[in-house]
Amino acid sequence: METKRNVYLNMVGIQQAQDCLFEKFGHLETGVQTLDVVQAQNRVLAAPAVAVISSPNFHAAAMDGVAVDAESTFGANDEAPKSLTIGKTAFWVNTGQVLPDGTNAVIMIEHLNILDENTIGIEAPAFPWQYVRKMGEDIVATQLLFPRDHKINAYAMGALLSGGVFKVSVRKRPGVLIIPTGSELKRWQDVTPETMKPGDVVESNATVLTALCADHGADATVNPMLEDDLQTIQAAVSDGVDQGYDMVMILGGSSAGSKDYSKPVIENLGRIYVHGVTMMPGKPLMFGGIGDTPVFGIPGYPVSAIVAFEMFAGPLLLAMQHLPPLKQEVVAVSPVRKVASKLGREEFLRVKIGAVDGRLMSSQLPRGAGSITTLTEADGIIRIPQHVEGIEAGKKVQAHLLRPLDAIENTVVITGSHDNTLDLLSDQIRLEHPGMGISSSHVGSMGGLMTIKKRGCHMAGCHLLDPDDGTYNISYIKKYLPDVPVRLVNLVMRQQGLILPKGNPDKVKRLSDIAEKNVTFINRQPGSGTRILFDFSLKENGLSAADVSGYENEEYTHMSVAVAVLSGRAGAGLGIKAAALALKLDFLPVVTESYDLVIPEIYYHLPKVQALICTIQSAEFKQRVMALGGYGVEQTGEELFRSV
Amino acid sequence: METKRNVYLNMVGIQQAQDCLFEKFGHLETGVQTLDVVQAQNRVLAAPAVAVISSPNFHAAAMDGVAVDAESTFGANDEAPKSLTIGKTAFWVNTGQVLPDGTNAVIMIEHLNILDENTIGIEAPAFPWQYVRKMGEDIVATQLLFPRDHKINAYAMGALLSGGVFKVSVRKRPGVLIIPTGSELKRWQDVTPETMKPGDVVESNATVLTALCADHGADATVNPMLEDDLQTIQAAVSDGVDQGYDMVMILGGSSAGSKDYSKPVIENLGRIYVHGVTMMPGKPLMFGGIGDTPVFGIPGYPVSAIVAFEMFAGPLLLAMQHLPPLKQEVVAVSPVRKVASKLGREEFLRVKIGAVDGRLMSSQLPRGAGSITTLTEADGIIRIPQHVEGIEAGKKVQAHLLRPLDAIENTVVITGSHDNTLDLLSDQIRLEHPGMGISSSHVGSMGGLMTIKKRGCHMAGCHLLDPDDGTYNISYIKKYLPDVPVRLVNLVMRQQGLILPKGNPDKVKRLSDIAEKNVTFINRQPGSGTRILFDFSLKENGLSAADVSGYENEEYTHMSVAVAVLSGRAGAGLGIKAAALALKLDFLPVVTESYDLVIPEIYYHLPKVQALICTIQSAEFKQRVMALGGYGVEQTGEELFRSV
Repeated sequence: METKRNVYLNMVGIQQAQDCLFEKFGHLETGVQTLDVVQAQNRVLAAPAVAVISSPNFHAAAMDGVAVDAESTFGANDEAPKSLTIGKTAFWVNTGQVLPDGTNAVIMIEHLNILDENTIGIEAPAFPWQYVRKMGEDIVATQLLFPRDHKINAYAMGALLSGGVFKVSVRKRPGVLIIPTGSELKRWQDVTPETMKPGDVVESNATVLTALCADHGADATVNPMLEDDLQTIQAAVSDGVDQGYDMVMILGGSSAGSKDYSKPVIENLGRIYVHGVTMMPGKPLMFGGIGDTPVFGIPGYPVSAIVAFEMFAGPLLLAMQHLPPLKQEVVAVSPVRKVASKLGREEFLRVKIGAVDGRLMSSQLPRGAGSITTLTEADGIIRIPQHVEGIEAGKKVQAHLLRPLDAIENTVVITGSHDNTLDLLSDQIRLEHPGMGISSSHVGSMGGLMTIKKRGCHMAGCHLLDPDDGTYNISYIKKYLPDVPVRLVNLVMRQQGLILPKGNPDKVKRLSDIAEKNVTFINRQPGSGTRILFDFSLKENGLSAADVSGYENEEYTHMSVAVAVLSGRAGAGLGIKAAALALKLDFLPVVTESYDLVIPEIYYHLPKVQALICTIQSAEFKQRVMALGGYGVEQTGEELFRSV
Repeated sequence: METKRNVYLNMVGIQQAQDCLFEKFGHLETGVQTLDVVQAQNRVLAAPAVAVISSPNFHAAAMDGVAVDAESTFGANDEAPKSLTIGKTAFWVNTGQVLPDGTNAVIMIEHLNILDENTIGIEAPAFPWQYVRKMGEDIVATQLLFPRDHKINAYAMGALLSGGVFKVSVRKRPGVLIIPTGSELKRWQDVTPETMKPGDVVESNATVLTALCADHGADATVNPMLEDDLQTIQAAVSDGVDQGYDMVMILGGSSAGSKDYSKPVIENLGRIYVHGVTMMPGKPLMFGGIGDTPVFGIPGYPVSAIVAFEMFAGPLLLAMQHLPPLKQEVVAVSPVRKVASKLGREEFLRVKIGAVDGRLMSSQLPRGAGSITTLTEADGIIRIPQHVEGIEAGKKVQAHLLRPLDAIENTVVITGSHDNTLDLLSDQIRLEHPGMGISSSHVGSMGGLMTIKKRGCHMAGCHLLDPDDGTYNISYIKKYLPDVPVRLVNLVMRQQGLILPKGNPDKVKRLSDIAEKNVTFINRQPGSGTRILFDFSLKENGLSAADVSGYENEEYTHMSVAVAVLSGRAGAGLGIKAAALALKLDFLPVVTESYDLVIPEIYYHLPKVQALICTIQSAEFKQRVMALGGYGVEQTGEELFRSV
């Protein structure tokens, strides 16, 4: 029994926590080292760099031709050319060569008349210093090349070498010790997907934070993974501080649970300054100091860990090297749907962003701190301040971008129903149209039609059965989008049916068995085409919702339904065959349906939409779809209907 | 005698040359290699990455507390609490642990009444799946994590590991062979500033291009430096192609001179596609193909080499890895002064950019392709198309930024007269006010006053002597800035005098000796305070311009005047003592003058200007000024006059 609990210190806001961090540690700077300039790319100068030689360090010919004393050429013109003697009044020079003594100008070879081996004629005078790079023209010895704290880029390396500065004094890269903790964690080196047991989690935060350290100019060392044990963790932290790391991060165990040892470790060795920040994700962040070394307790959920790093550890690492904050590109976006948010905590909302109709529209991704894919799928992050309760649909708010704006602008935004072939399409379009991409989010077929109405997407995936005539989508378009001219293009025909545990233990033979054999069902959300299909099928069988155990349990995608069946949460669910095949589950076909794309006429001719349609029509896409199983491509890419 | 010349092929425009490059080589891609995910940061996926395990791969507690079957809790409320038995109907779980079989919800520890060691009470029911991270909530096995050509960042590494993808198939980094050529070049490893002779040039392009290759995801190998010899260069290029480099660059020798061997080398081994591009700098660029290997002839001037790389070689290296073009931040700027430009070539104009008066103002830097400092001092680059003859002052044009906009906005723009202490100030302000900086350009004292009038700078350095009363600056402010309220703040008192060759070979004892001993003078540009001082001094001595040999030779800074004397171009120049001391020249004092900053009242209170004034007034700045020699700091930082 584990009931002993830590408690959060008073939680503080992000700004207050950042101020505290910099008050305690803002004076820290990494040491200074001397490097060859050629090794110093992206380093920060610890002292001003002053040229020790001039560039050029001589008067140099800036053209191929002859060097002359300009005065000796005065008076030459095309009626009265002058002749010069090689070796006496004129000297051959190539670009870059030293001007011979007594000369102060170069005449280009193109302007010379070569009279004989020793004599040339000119028809115009040279003015003094023409086509000459004068000594010190670029750099004068003793001049300041760069002030301290200048970050050395490729150009700067050239200027330093040209100014005779071959070694520079730069800030050391901070050393960070990362200590992953958690008895449930496995090193990726120690497992294979096949040997992983339920409860095993692959440690990934150490890798992510190591990469983020690199992005912030720091070198991370990952400690061997530690069990949840106070003494072991304390010893590792203490060793890290003694070894002179510039920062120590304990991964996991920063919360207030009984096995969260970050707090006692830091308290035993030093002092805690902040435990708990009113932000989401990332609330359980803590930091303190052991001697002069900042020590972070980084939350274990992957998104929390990243937010904690980027808000706190990262900026401090930059400051230690006198580097400016990382630049974030910020744009104004409008949420497609209203966003709710709790007062009293600042939220980092991950959003997809689409450039639709000349505006940037955002749709929110799931908020769970445990879902790394909410960051990898995000195009941007909206910070909702703690005093704001939510954002109205359509209101403009700031989002900082995680992908370049031009990539977002080359992306086709697809919403509506989910289908596995959209993933294939996302890969295939990159092959056939480099630079183009698709971004898909799943709000169900009806949700897709509503998003089209709000101009929040370029197209919507749709498979809405009309129970009256057995047709798909067209009657819904007529009813719900009467004023929006659209085209309906078939993506795939697909088999929908019951996804059942491997071996079909309940011996489900038909849809009505769900009710008759009291199999726990996993349903889809209202408004999804599959939900409509299920309700229609129940009715056909003379059943109702009340007859189905688990009718109220909802998932949002076919794959989630399949996972629910795989994990034992449910004994059956309605979904596409591809999802059952992917997880090696049993499948009982119910219907073959048309999964189509509804494309508003105003977007149909956009180059990126045309690129998408070409990709859909390609033989390779169709082959890849067929390889998934459960699909038909007889009509793939065909226009089925046009409401113009 | 060297008169054999290559000729340029027909020169082509940038776009045409780029099109040709991609037509010939755009199909090239680097090979594929398998890397551990932890080694794959910033690499590009060569194949789609598909999850092989779900994350989580089990139903996991999302809170510390007890796991229960939700149904067993139904009906509990504060009037009728329910009790649960540990080990039977309730199971202790910590966040992240596997949900025991038969449970489907977690009740937070904060909501439990612990009755005895085996019994807990609850006063509210749990709903199914509350505080549970369901299997596959983040990632479902078989789902597409990233399509091909996705660049792997820190977040992506986390998603890959979480999805059981421990190794990835990525594009190899292109290998580039850089072959520096040029008999005049010295490797920095082989010289010291002391041992360099006139005509020796430190090779820097190989270092710059190696760093640029790194910025473009490529690995450069630098060949030993080669003499200007056809056979040697040809052998090195041929070896490089045979060894399988993805690209070969010959540095230098791409022009049309007699010792420019890049063209014959490429022609002998393969084919030239472009020789000469109508751009400046960078015109002598050439490229061709040897087999399937692109080979570049990169011009030797440093800015030309960089432009050639960034316009051609760099984008090709990115394309080989399926990386998108590097992002350039573009802003609208207004030139302070009219910019002239020749028709028929596209110019890359390096400019300083200042945020003055809410606008971004640009001032052009020198245009020489040989001056690397024109890039390192630049804040941005304006591309002037080949069909445009110039840019009017004040007209808005696009500039792409070389420094972040916020750094530009934190920069005090100083123009007018040049003084060496401005360099010190530039370094000192970084020490005292991190993030702040100054940007100084030199247009002479009168030019500075005119720039203030046009609101093109925050302040101007000024040392204009009024011959009538011996005062400095005030009478000029009254005359030329009658409508602009300004403050006049002293920066330094400084000695002006004759800068003379070491040892004073002409035995110059007074200013009039210049004329009497017929010493070649090096003058400053009209409008500079020093020019006005010289003209005044000549008049005082009963002399005129005609009496001074070299009066018409002009330089723009004190250091350039000193260099002219050092190099023997001139026997004397008028300038500040600090310049003479820096180059160890002789100095004959003529006058001590007041070098002041003219600061418009509207900018005086800006935080960055106040930071600058604080820095000027600091004891450390004054000490550093005194260490230069030739300066007095009695009035440094004092307000001398206010025209309010």
